[in-house]
Amino acid sequence: MTFPVPLTGVVPPVCTPLTPRREVDVPSLLRLVDHLVDGGVHGLFLLGSTSEAAFLTDHQRRQVVEAVVGHVGGRLPVLAGAIDMTTPRVLDHVRAVTAAGAQAVVVTAPFYARTHRSEIVHHYRRIAAASAVPVIAYDIPAAVHTKLPADLVLGLAGDGVLAGLKDSSGDLGAFREVVTGARAHTGFSVLTGSELVVDAALALGADGAVPGLANVDPHGYVRLYRMCRAGDRDGARAEQERLCALFGMVAAGDPARMGGSSSALGAFKAALHLRGVIDCAVTAEPQVPLSGEEVEKVGKFLAAAGLL
Amino acid sequence: MTFPVPLTGVVPPVCTPLTPRREVDVPSLLRLVDHLVDGGVHGLFLLGSTSEAAFLTDHQRRQVVEAVVGHVGGRLPVLAGAIDMTTPRVLDHVRAVTAAGAQAVVVTAPFYARTHRSEIVHHYRRIAAASAVPVIAYDIPAAVHTKLPADLVLGLAGDGVLAGLKDSSGDLGAFREVVTGARAHTGFSVLTGSELVVDAALALGADGAVPGLANVDPHGYVRLYRMCRAGDRDGARAEQERLCALFGMVAAGDPARMGGSSSALGAFKAALHLRGVIDCAVTAEPQVPLSGEEVEKVGKFLAAAGLL
Amino acid sequence: MTFPVPLTGVVPPVCTPLTPRREVDVPSLLRLVDHLVDGGVHGLFLLGSTSEAAFLTDHQRRQVVEAVVGHVGGRLPVLAGAIDMTTPRVLDHVRAVTAAGAQAVVVTAPFYARTHRSEIVHHYRRIAAASAVPVIAYDIPAAVHTKLPADLVLGLAGDGVLAGLKDSSGDLGAFREVVTGARAHTGFSVLTGSELVVDAALALGADGAVPGLANVDPHGYVRLYRMCRAGDRDGARAEQERLCALFGMVAAGDPARMGGSSSALGAFKAALHLRGVIDCAVTAEPQVPLSGEEVEKVGKFLAAAGLL
Amino acid sequence: MTFPVPLTGVVPPVCTPLTPRREVDVPSLLRLVDHLVDGGVHGLFLLGSTSEAAFLTDHQRRQVVEAVVGHVGGRLPVLAGAIDMTTPRVLDHVRAVTAAGAQAVVVTAPFYARTHRSEIVHHYRRIAAASAVPVIAYDIPAAVHTKLPADLVLGLAGDGVLAGLKDSSGDLGAFREVVTGARAHTGFSVLTGSELVVDAALALGADGAVPGLANVDPHGYVRLYRMCRAGDRDGARAEQERLCALFGMVAAGDPARMGGSSSALGAFKAALHLRGVIDCAVTAEPQVPLSGEEVEKVGKFLAAAGLL
Repeated sequence: MTFPVPLTGVVPPVCTPLTPRREVDVPSLLRLVDHLVDGGVHGLFLLGSTSEAAFLTDHQRRQVVEAVVGHVGGRLPVLAGAIDMTTPRVLDHVRAVTAAGAQAVVVTAPFYARTHRSEIVHHYRRIAAASAVPVIAYDIPAAVHTKLPADLVLGLAGDGVLAGLKDSSGDLGAFREVVTGARAHTGFSVLTGSELVVDAALALGADGAVPGLANVDPHGYVRLYRMCRAGDRDGARAEQERLCALFGMVAAGDPARMGGSSSALGAFKAALHLRGVIDCAVTAEPQVPLSGEEVEKVGKFLAAAGLL
Repeated sequence: MTFPVPLTGVVPPVCTPLTPRREVDVPSLLRLVDHLVDGGVHGLFLLGSTSEAAFLTDHQRRQVVEAVVGHVGGRLPVLAGAIDMTTPRVLDHVRAVTAAGAQAVVVTAPFYARTHRSEIVHHYRRIAAASAVPVIAYDIPAAVHTKLPADLVLGLAGDGVLAGLKDSSGDLGAFREVVTGARAHTGFSVLTGSELVVDAALALGADGAVPGLANVDPHGYVRLYRMCRAGDRDGARAEQERLCALFGMVAAGDPARMGGSSSALGAFKAALHLRGVIDCAVTAEPQVPLSGEEVEKVGKFLAAAGLL
Repeated sequence: MTFPVPLTGVVPPVCTPLTPRREVDVPSLLRLVDHLVDGGVHGLFLLGSTSEAAFLTDHQRRQVVEAVVGHVGGRLPVLAGAIDMTTPRVLDHVRAVTAAGAQAVVVTAPFYARTHRSEIVHHYRRIAAASAVPVIAYDIPAAVHTKLPADLVLGLAGDGVLAGLKDSSGDLGAFREVVTGARAHTGFSVLTGSELVVDAALALGADGAVPGLANVDPHGYVRLYRMCRAGDRDGARAEQERLCALFGMVAAGDPARMGGSSSALGAFKAALHLRGVIDCAVTAEPQVPLSGEEVEKVGKFLAAAGLL
Repeated sequence: MTFPVPLTGVVPPVCTPLTPRREVDVPSLLRLVDHLVDGGVHGLFLLGSTSEAAFLTDHQRRQVVEAVVGHVGGRLPVLAGAIDMTTPRVLDHVRAVTAAGAQAVVVTAPFYARTHRSEIVHHYRRIAAASAVPVIAYDIPAAVHTKLPADLVLGLAGDGVLAGLKDSSGDLGAFREVVTGARAHTGFSVLTGSELVVDAALALGADGAVPGLANVDPHGYVRLYRMCRAGDRDGARAEQERLCALFGMVAAGDPARMGGSSSALGAFKAALHLRGVIDCAVTAEPQVPLSGEEVEKVGKFLAAAGLL
């Protein structure tokens, strides 16, 4: 399929199910993809933060993209993260995921090394010049410790370097600046990564959403998207509030025992396991697993949201 | 050679010279190694932050270790960084650099993903269990945005998980806690990565130093180390102050135009080029090159320190 | 007047006009109050961050509250910040602004000293116990370097300690958690301090807004509020976008020459001066004044928004 | 007495004993001053962070300075913090503490409001111009969230604006830059606020130290200072290590129950109470008190250091 310009709708960052020995569980992954496609999602984003991209080896990353691209067979667009520290390493990932069939790549600002605005610009220009597929900027300051400035993103949009933005910064004011500024640039897609304000993001003009929680409840986010597009803002608000309550599962893990990633990704996987979508809820190392009691909490969130 | 226990002395994080096309310049790299060995250094640390490890592809990383290990031929110990986001990816690098001949690996806390003390402990335990060579913790909060707590390091030292610490945190009080606590653990090596307080670190009991600036002036840091060991603290102070003045070169680059990494690593490479050690001062992308005027500034620092 | 429960509508954080010698310019302040009242605002928030509370002496703070309370004469509710580092100092300000006639106090988490969740809870409990008027929590992490957790705020709301929240965190997801949680607590007022997403905040259920930019364009924010309440979301979005464009003035000052506070507060005051509301645009020390050219930029923002 | 130029030696930031009702306990304060003077300290720093300046009301601050200045009667120099958010508020404190007899004022960068290098420079210039006594810069990024750059401090030293620096940044490399740079400026005093590396700071040329722990063990820090000045670096190292072990008391409080300030200041006061110097160990609100068990831990640190 041609990559849609601009990309719109619900594009979940697909979780990566693992076996108990922490190999990619391809059958579970494909069942998860079916679950999402059945839910009506408009695209799939592989190898994002929710996909545990930071934890997957190069071999596993390639496995994930190949398996999903092959399974989807062009029914909907497949994006893949090319998450690494700097330009040369990202370029290697871009080549790998593109060879494996990804139709767009999602790229953060450089991290680990101290960076600078001019270096971020050069980073995206070099990657776009070398990439056979569209490049989408991934703004995730919690991970890379740099916020992509709205005017930088819009400048690169105007120059045709970037095809879109996935915003996980949580800063809706800055997001809005990109949304309104991007109206001048046809084909640029502005997507929110914030599970909790998708209705607000769409109301102010976003093209779509990339909510990690859509792994657990794709139908809910697709319903929300449709209500927003149909102008049913009160319906959308009610649906969004239901999803916000469900999102409470990300705090199931005890913060004295584990980090936020272990808790949130552990909860998503536990929920997918409880819903019968994946075989095993294990997360990659060095993440800490949820306890039995914590998994029960996740179950209660599912039940309260009508999902169990 | 057997890896020395504990590792002591001056162990520079070796710069990675590149060709104008940004391939690893092996002849320049080996000349740099000779320059360091001639300077009397006690070990070599490849693929650290000063080595631009964050910018080197997997292929380049392997090339660097193989070339240097082969060239050194066991004359002095060679450590290599295994810098990546999480346990599974670090394990791949550990295998690669060990296969290429590194005699110890240097590993940071997880980054990109939010982490937790218990996850950091698990990270190091898993890596040490899988590594054929000693594991040295790399504390570099400016890059990974987590500080390794002294008691965590000492706990892992006591359990034989860690063989040493390379501390680039700049927090000499916490460093001292590790130094004094580590006296109970034979074979644990505590190394400072702070160019500016090597005399102080050695005076309080550190085993050695890993100063990036030692690429430019290995003789100076070796002199400093010997004076400290000989108890000539006033001589050491004078030598350290000369090196502190030389270190001013890291600010040669205009902060309005580039980040701190571009400026500091650009200055080290410019200095090595001016001193005739390497062929080309280019740094990896997306770093911004120093201007001609900025390179001249570097030359003035060299001249003032008696190195040009 | 009785303090309205819950407080709703547009409640600007009132700028504090100064004379060229940096004394409080009471006549200008009262003209600004009239300008806001004429604009239809629903309350006034004195001594907030936009009011330069951090820069005003105790004498000046008292002067501001007395002058405005006397002038307003109960026509609309007057809130006052009690901004200081810790409980005992805040209590002194609470007494002072209450004596001067403020009908509610607005209080941040402790700052300067390292704090803890349990200390923040104790802080608010002590202040509420001692205060003769309602206490509103002020969440402004950019200033105090602590984010008030939603569940902490809701707990204190449930216990009757807090009468409301002024949220300047920019985190709309967490804000929403307070808004939906607060439905259980009658009389608790949830107000956004983010100029750029007032429409979104109201759509998800906020009671009102405290936008600094409403000093410059109170009519705009009141119009926006009314459209949101009337369900005219497209009209609201257009008005909000006009205000977002106007908000661009906060970046009028050169970041190489001044901080964000100098630029933003300098722009608000320059705009009020250009609109003929206040006599002098000077800001408190050590802020840097806008240049003539930068003031011209502010004028262009006003003109583009139809305000000049 | 004339204020010594430069100020040298051990200058403890004096704790502020409180009564159970949290009023300043003047008799205990004066006993603490006697304890310090008997210990041989070279000056007293009132109203610093260790003094809980952030928690003291204006009335209490004045009380502290008046009581101590009167009691000391010129036997040794008395400095006082003028800790507040911005220039106008700091100027009020400067006037107050000077009127109460302080012979120098200690001033941080602005906080709460976002600031800028040029604003910090202006802040110190304005304060020095208005102050009747010398102004010492207080670099405490953990509290004010800005690090004073070495070249800024040296520039103001060269212009005669600043008479000294109290460095609580923990960054010994930057501290050294000030120490070596300040040799050009007669009368400028460089003091470390880091309890754990006083020997190192003095060895590299610092004029003195402002260690909070010197409240508990003034004799120890004075001994350390004298050994350093006498060139007995091994003796100094042993004494410093004893003090480092004693400093472990600051972690006596459970981090799940209280913040770092409650724990550290609570431990200092508990130690002073256990040693019979002050009547009551209570800290200011909203700090959490140490439990009985935690106070016992403090006692064990005292016993291990030979102080109980």
